Amino acid sequence: MAMSSPLWVAPPFLSRPSSNISRSITYKRCRSSASNFFSQSDMEQPLMKGQKLMEFPHLTAAHKDLMVSLISALETRLDSHLLASSVVPPDVEFYQNDQGTSQGSLHIRRGLPSSHIDFVLASWLHLKVPTGSAMNITNLQAYLKSSTDVPHFQFELVQCSPTYFILFLDITPRKDLVLYPNYLKTFYEEAQLETLRQRLEQVPETKPYLSSSLYFRGVVSPTGILVSIKCEEVGGTDRCEEIIREHVSPIAHDVMVIWLEKYFSGATVGVTERAELEKRDLLVKTRAIEMDLSSSLPLQFGQEVANRVLSVIKGVLGV
Amino acid sequence: MAMSSPLWVAPPFLSRPSSNISRSITYKRCRSSASNFFSQSDMEQPLMKGQKLMEFPHLTAAHKDLMVSLISALETRLDSHLLASSVVPPDVEFYQNDQGTSQGSLHIRRGLPSSHIDFVLASWLHLKVPTGSAMNITNLQAYLKSSTDVPHFQFELVQCSPTYFILFLDITPRKDLVLYPNYLKTFYEEAQLETLRQRLEQVPETKPYLSSSLYFRGVVSPTGILVSIKCEEVGGTDRCEEIIREHVSPIAHDVMVIWLEKYFSGATVGVTERAELEKRDLLVKTRAIEMDLSSSLPLQFGQEVANRVLSVIKGVLGV
Repeated sequence: MAMSSPLWVAPPFLSRPSSNISRSITYKRCRSSASNFFSQSDMEQPLMKGQKLMEFPHLTAAHKDLMVSLISALETRLDSHLLASSVVPPDVEFYQNDQGTSQGSLHIRRGLPSSHIDFVLASWLHLKVPTGSAMNITNLQAYLKSSTDVPHFQFELVQCSPTYFILFLDITPRKDLVLYPNYLKTFYEEAQLETLRQRLEQVPETKPYLSSSLYFRGVVSPTGILVSIKCEEVGGTDRCEEIIREHVSPIAHDVMVIWLEKYFSGATVGVTERAELEKRDLLVKTRAIEMDLSSSLPLQFGQEVANRVLSVIKGVLGV
Repeated sequence: MAMSSPLWVAPPFLSRPSSNISRSITYKRCRSSASNFFSQSDMEQPLMKGQKLMEFPHLTAAHKDLMVSLISALETRLDSHLLASSVVPPDVEFYQNDQGTSQGSLHIRRGLPSSHIDFVLASWLHLKVPTGSAMNITNLQAYLKSSTDVPHFQFELVQCSPTYFILFLDITPRKDLVLYPNYLKTFYEEAQLETLRQRLEQVPETKPYLSSSLYFRGVVSPTGILVSIKCEEVGGTDRCEEIIREHVSPIAHDVMVIWLEKYFSGATVGVTERAELEKRDLLVKTRAIEMDLSSSLPLQFGQEVANRVLSVIKGVLGV
């Protein structure tokens, strides 16, 4: 059950690279490097906001369809709560290492000052490991301001190989569920999240995935979906595609719909509670940066690219 | 993974009976009822404090040995921190229903006023279900006062059948592990609890057990052991005995030793923190009584016996 994978399965900036990834990978600004995955004309054109992200050039069809539909659905529903443009400059919207073997794309829209949305972040990472294989980490999350206590939305699908995926799908609590039983009741016991978790559990290829981080185990909600999907039989790649299309995708959409309902009906909280939420949220964000991003990004992309990406993320997170 | 068992796997007073248990079971004071399991001379003798508990008349040899050794070890190490006598009157030290088909034993020693121990509670429940089979719930826990923030110790082993057990073994946190990263570090990340959890995970007959209570999922620590042990092959009963003797017992003792070290090195906390711990602890205890004990005990033992047992437990819990 507990896997030895170094993956942390968390927001994109929380995801550890494989420890096999060479430390010799150095940075190079994406525009100045030839890429195996983007055409020359792509590189020469000024990037449209969010366009680069939505290309998902390294994903299987089902994985790409899922990401595009999920991100589109979320942005459509939240559009009137979000600032129109991304806060991500073009050289962070797409970035890669010197060899072009590791690539990433980041897209962030902040919430309007009048809304409870802090930011919506979507990203993908493509990491080639020395063995020749590659992994793809795709992510979508919506973080809320401390003006509401509604949980954050988190989705991450990691393709470790074409027949092995790890999924994290949750609305993560912002309060201690033992100390605040009404919070547990409102957002988890009375929602249909447990039914959705159980639905995915019925798929025989899924297994509970236990993060090696004790901290992360405490971040996940009681109905959080954290599973590995392994299709080892003949035709495993097709079966994985089928699972993503038939099971992961509808369940991810359903969880998002539940979260959106909670978001739209969430009340504004008082000043004292706001301070408590802010404190806890900040701890989560700081820990994320400290634990993972600050060491793993330089390793994958070199210090300069990492600094560029980190500076954008830190700015948005406020840490 | 998620099981449909109505068991909550929690302290003894938290354990739900099978929903099959007849509602017609009525109470009868244990002394006035013949028992299949206790000799007449036992009934006529005044009970020694704790003696009845340690008989464990319905357990397999390995299960009984484990309980006796664990309780003895804990009481020996904590003896100078505990009041000499049990707070449990004889008619709660052993109780049963009208037919003598459901029986229970409870033993509680409070901590000395000068110690951080609130109470140590040990118990067993033997519940005959209408199908003719029986289940045995055995429990040991040590609750601490709010003068310390050291986690509580919890052990519960449920024998659903001779070839199917559920184990809960944990030191349960008393603070939000996200909000208090140092607490997580001190009691979980720096302890060897995860290694012990992984050791038991290696036993092929064990599987993670997911409580149906979302609340309970939030009570368990990130290194908490919550597993089912199922030995379905020929010789399953012997194999279960072997697993309890060779794996569960040493791991339970090891977790207890870690907890005892934490307990003996635990500092006294300040007034503000004490109030917070008290509030959270009280919520846990109240929820336990509300959710489970108040409805399940009358069902199993009848209202009068249930009231008697409940009154003792509520008194000790302070709810």
